[in-house]
Formats: sequence, structure tokens, C-alpha cells
Amino acid sequence: MKRELIKTDKIPKATITRLSLYYRQLELLEFDGYRMVSSDKLAWLCQVNPAQVRKDLGYFGEFGVRGVGYDVRDLKHEIMKILAVNREWNMGIAGIGNLGSALLQHQNFPARGFNFVAAFDTDTEKIGRVLPSGLMVKDLEELVFTVEELEIQIGVITTPPEVAQMVADLFLDAQVNAILNFSPTQIHVPDCCRVENIDFTIKLDILSYKLKHEMGL
Amino acid sequence: MKRELIKTDKIPKATITRLSLYYRQLELLEFDGYRMVSSDKLAWLCQVNPAQVRKDLGYFGEFGVRGVGYDVRDLKHEIMKILAVNREWNMGIAGIGNLGSALLQHQNFPARGFNFVAAFDTDTEKIGRVLPSGLMVKDLEELVFTVEELEIQIGVITTPPEVAQMVADLFLDAQVNAILNFSPTQIHVPDCCRVENIDFTIKLDILSYKLKHEMGL
Repeated sequence: MKRELIKTDKIPKATITRLSLYYRQLELLEFDGYRMVSSDKLAWLCQVNPAQVRKDLGYFGEFGVRGVGYDVRDLKHEIMKILAVNREWNMGIAGIGNLGSALLQHQNFPARGFNFVAAFDTDTEKIGRVLPSGLMVKDLEELVFTVEELEIQIGVITTPPEVAQMVADLFLDAQVNAILNFSPTQIHVPDCCRVENIDFTIKLDILSYKLKHEMGL
Repeated sequence: MKRELIKTDKIPKATITRLSLYYRQLELLEFDGYRMVSSDKLAWLCQVNPAQVRKDLGYFGEFGVRGVGYDVRDLKHEIMKILAVNREWNMGIAGIGNLGSALLQHQNFPARGFNFVAAFDTDTEKIGRVLPSGLMVKDLEELVFTVEELEIQIGVITTPPEVAQMVADLFLDAQVNAILNFSPTQIHVPDCCRVENIDFTIKLDILSYKLKHEMGL
């Protein structure tokens, strides 16, 4: 297998998103006992076109055999290495309401190496409470200290929007360079930090738009 | 204000996503008492460039006054009309686990006209239980009937991935043309249906990739 130097600044974010989809489908294929998969089939499973699959993988080297397809396990492992999900990441979450609590109990995160190791809130009713996941809610004031102590690399924000920026600033103070923001607001961070937003209402706005303009509702 | 015929097939999805962001920021600006906003300021708040703001809005007509900016309230109302969020939508949700329960209690949905009017599960322990939101969990078998009875337009899926497609098929049987899928799997639907996926782990994979390749962690 030929490997080339990866110039990540040339790689579109959409490619990384699709790699994550390919990885998910390869896991399912492996679970179902498949040893090989064609780019056509992988593409269909991920609802993209086959040329796109080949182009996305082409950024990172040459995988698969022409006319035969990809070895499911090998390709899965290569993508895991590319995505850096062949390791564990420590996460801290701030805002332990309904959504925060649900995320803490979500099986998908630890199954993929993303581990919540600390939970923070400002509500004195919540601080000190032990959650079903076994974590004890800490005072938000302890965030910076705790992040350093537990070597947290990813901060998750599930607070109301009014305080999301303040919490992001705390994570930044603690040298956290990656934030997953569930709060429905834009947070501003310096270039050294990466933010991914998960905003339910934007997705609903898109569906609403399509129902009106494409479905005539 | 000049209005043109909207050819929605020419409008990029990214534009619709940004309209939703602009709408959010305009709401905040209105709340803070601002009457006018420049495209520069709106762009900064939404973390896009000003030319992009003007181009996005340009698809839908001419808003704002050169050198003066946009009237905050007017532009908000125009975007609400474009996104069709100046009305109510009925939603049904299938899969009442931690995430489903959290979404049902999320204040943001009803505040924006997206109302959960039915909740479904297959767990006999849950069926018949009245949720904090006041909804009673129904048997998934009642989905098709209920969707028609309550005129549900949007289906929300928070089930485990193994059953997500089956649930999507039920929504399709009931003529639901818009699905918000939180289950970490791709669901396949005919052209008459629109799906938006919210996949937490894809976002974490992207952060993981960036931590490795851009931050050297």
C-alpha cells in the first residue's frame, strides 16, 4: 500500500465527514461478516457516488484493488488511523440539563473512544450529584483545574446560549483546542481552536424550507 | 422591496443553513434593541464573510439599503418567510430513550414553531407513560394512524440504528416527507422525502481528525 504525505489543508471538510460515514458502514459490513466491498457498494451504503468514494480515499493513499474492491477490515483500520479514532480522547461537558445528561449516557461515545471524564454545571442543586454514568457533577469554577488534571482534549458545551461563550472561554483558558457546541449560538474562538456545532434547529429550518419550497406544504 | 421568483433548485443548501444562522442572530439583535445591522456586522456575528451574506440574501430578492444596512426586524421576518418558520409544524418522535426524552423537553423546538405532538416507542414499559412534556408514549404500531390523525409533517428518529430504517419506512407509509434522523446510520428514502441527519459521532470524528492533523495531538 502506497502512502503519501498528507497535506491536510488541501482536504475538504466534506471528505473528512464522508470518511466518518465510510468508517461507520465498514464497521457494519465487518459485523455482518463481509471481507471485501466494492466502491460501488460502499458508495450506495453511504449515499454518495462511487467516484466520490475513490476521490476521498485518494487523498490519503491507494487503498483497494482495481476490479476487486476494498478489504473491509484493512480499510476500516486505515480510516481509523486517518481520523485518529484508533485512540482514546478525554472529554469534559458543561451544562448538565436534559441534553447533557442524555449525552453522558449515550453508548456511542465511549464505544468509539470518546470518554466523558468530567461534567460541570453552575447549579448548586446539581453540583456534587453523582450521575447515572458514575461521574460527579463539578462546579464550573473547577473547569480549568480539572481539564489540566484529567488531560481533557475536547470540551462539550450543552449550556443555554447566554453562557456558551463564557464556557468556551474557560475551555480555551485551560488549553482545550477542540469544542463540540450543542448550544444554539455561534461561539467565537481564536485560530488555535476548532469548533464543531450541532444545532438541531438549523436542521429543522432546512426541513421546513424544503417542505415549503420543494414539497409545496 | 423587489421580489423575484425563487428557483430553489439553484440555491445551495449551505445558503439555507446560513439563512438559519442569520435568522438566529437577527433574533438576538432584535432582543438587544438593535434596529439596523450592517452586512459586515451580521457576517461577523455568523462567522462568514460579508460578501457571502449579500450573495445568500441576493437569491431571494433585494433587502437592505446600500451604505445603511438591513432593518433587523424586516430582514428577520423575510427570512422567517423564506424558511417557512413563520408557521407551526407538527412533529412525531420515535424512540423515547435519554436523547428522545431530552429533545421532547428542549425549549427551543416549540419556541420556534416545531411542536412534538406524538411520541412512539416499542417498549411496553414506556408505552402509556405520560412524559414530563405531557405527551403519552404511544405504541410504534400506532404511528401511521397517529401521523394522519394529528397531521404530523416531520418525523424525528431517536431509535437505535438497527431499527431506524424500519421507523423511517413507517413515517413514509404515513406520508411524512421530512425526517430528522438522530440515529447514527444512513436511512434510505425515496426522492419524495427529505432527510436531515444529526450525527454526534461524525462531528467528534472531525474534531479528532483536526486534533491530530492540525494540532499535532
